[in-house]
Amino acid sequence: MIDFSKIKVVLVETSHPGNIGSAARAMKTMGFKNLFLVSPKCQINEISYAMASNAGDVLDDAIVFNSLSEALSDCDYIIGATARQRDIPIEIFNPREVAKKIHIKQFKSIALLLGNEARGLTNEQLSLCSIGLHIPCNKNYTSLNIASSLQIMLYEILFESKNEVSDINKIDKYDIASHEKLMSFLSHLDKVLKNINFIKDDRPMISRKINHIFKKSDLSEEEINILRGFLSAIENHSQ
Amino acid sequence: MIDFSKIKVVLVETSHPGNIGSAARAMKTMGFKNLFLVSPKCQINEISYAMASNAGDVLDDAIVFNSLSEALSDCDYIIGATARQRDIPIEIFNPREVAKKIHIKQFKSIALLLGNEARGLTNEQLSLCSIGLHIPCNKNYTSLNIASSLQIMLYEILFESKNEVSDINKIDKYDIASHEKLMSFLSHLDKVLKNINFIKDDRPMISRKINHIFKKSDLSEEEINILRGFLSAIENHSQ
Repeated sequence: MIDFSKIKVVLVETSHPGNIGSAARAMKTMGFKNLFLVSPKCQINEISYAMASNAGDVLDDAIVFNSLSEALSDCDYIIGATARQRDIPIEIFNPREVAKKIHIKQFKSIALLLGNEARGLTNEQLSLCSIGLHIPCNKNYTSLNIASSLQIMLYEILFESKNEVSDINKIDKYDIASHEKLMSFLSHLDKVLKNINFIKDDRPMISRKINHIFKKSDLSEEEINILRGFLSAIENHSQ
Repeated sequence: MIDFSKIKVVLVETSHPGNIGSAARAMKTMGFKNLFLVSPKCQINEISYAMASNAGDVLDDAIVFNSLSEALSDCDYIIGATARQRDIPIEIFNPREVAKKIHIKQFKSIALLLGNEARGLTNEQLSLCSIGLHIPCNKNYTSLNIASSLQIMLYEILFESKNEVSDINKIDKYDIASHEKLMSFLSHLDKVLKNINFIKDDRPMISRKINHIFKKSDLSEEEINILRGFLSAIENHSQ
């Protein structure tokens, strides 16, 4: 069974205090308590506490960050909620698939990102994610708010945790590199791609697509070290 | 697939106008619209409409009854939500089990009952039900409100109705490259790794490990083409 304390709910640029409170309540009903707020557009106030009902302790312990990368620094698996198809090469899964993924693999720290009420996560924010989460809903009325989305996703995780995971899936376990290590590798890669003139500034999609290949591979620390060795070899050879 | 118009959400003795509105919103996001109110302890008012967001049409069409039996008169399957174990001989199921039941059996009209906010359904009201519904939650904080409970239950029904993968996932499905394409890429990669002196003949493990990174990534044809472009750029730059 997964340790729920590994999972962080990260609300990005939330505008309404009441939504932060409802999110806290939804979290607590399903047994989750780590709430991160990134650049909130409002304060936690009495409306938040009223909407949280008896989940005020989740609000008390909420941590505010000024940047998303800071909030995600120790996360090795990042799930970004999205209501619509995006032009970025990230794989999208439904809540049940996401719940299974985080139970099968042994992640150290998992973040579940939900964006601003009006516009969701930006493409840039989503591109930091390991996978996308899309909740099936009425195509003519997709107005799932933050708390509703959380309620469904966290319910799926709780539900999945009550099913015994079979041993055969546990073989898949290995040390996945931290998000920081991965991002640092990707920025090294980007530099090399530019140096050898493979990426020009007018082709951002190629860079994203290459990043996606490595993001979806669940790279271990050792694998990242090998790939960085490869990058250094390219650099040394080009000099 | 089940016809959602067969399913009625029946709120019994609800006290808060806002909860009726949130319920309407939760219903509409999942594609449901039949809302019955039995002996409500409040009126549908502007707070209800505010909480309903753009699901005001569900409130407009809500039907009010003075008795539960009247509301249930044409229903041949009645599901009663309960947060706790009861002393009545009714079988209790979780949302996924309930969703499967209503998809398997051919009912004419199905009611989903949710009781008053403070005390839930009475034993007498529950005894009218075909089955009980209990939503798994945090044992130390079972405070799922009406809208949250509906959100989860109706999501399970929607999910069960889509045995196929959601459209958003279909778009995302891509053609995994043929084994031949992959092997041809890996041999190109091997050649480049040797040319830039990253692999020497005495380090076969490094080559294997790098191959493994790309083998496990389920590369698409497009991704392989991009990576081959990368390899060609390394070759051109080294000349």
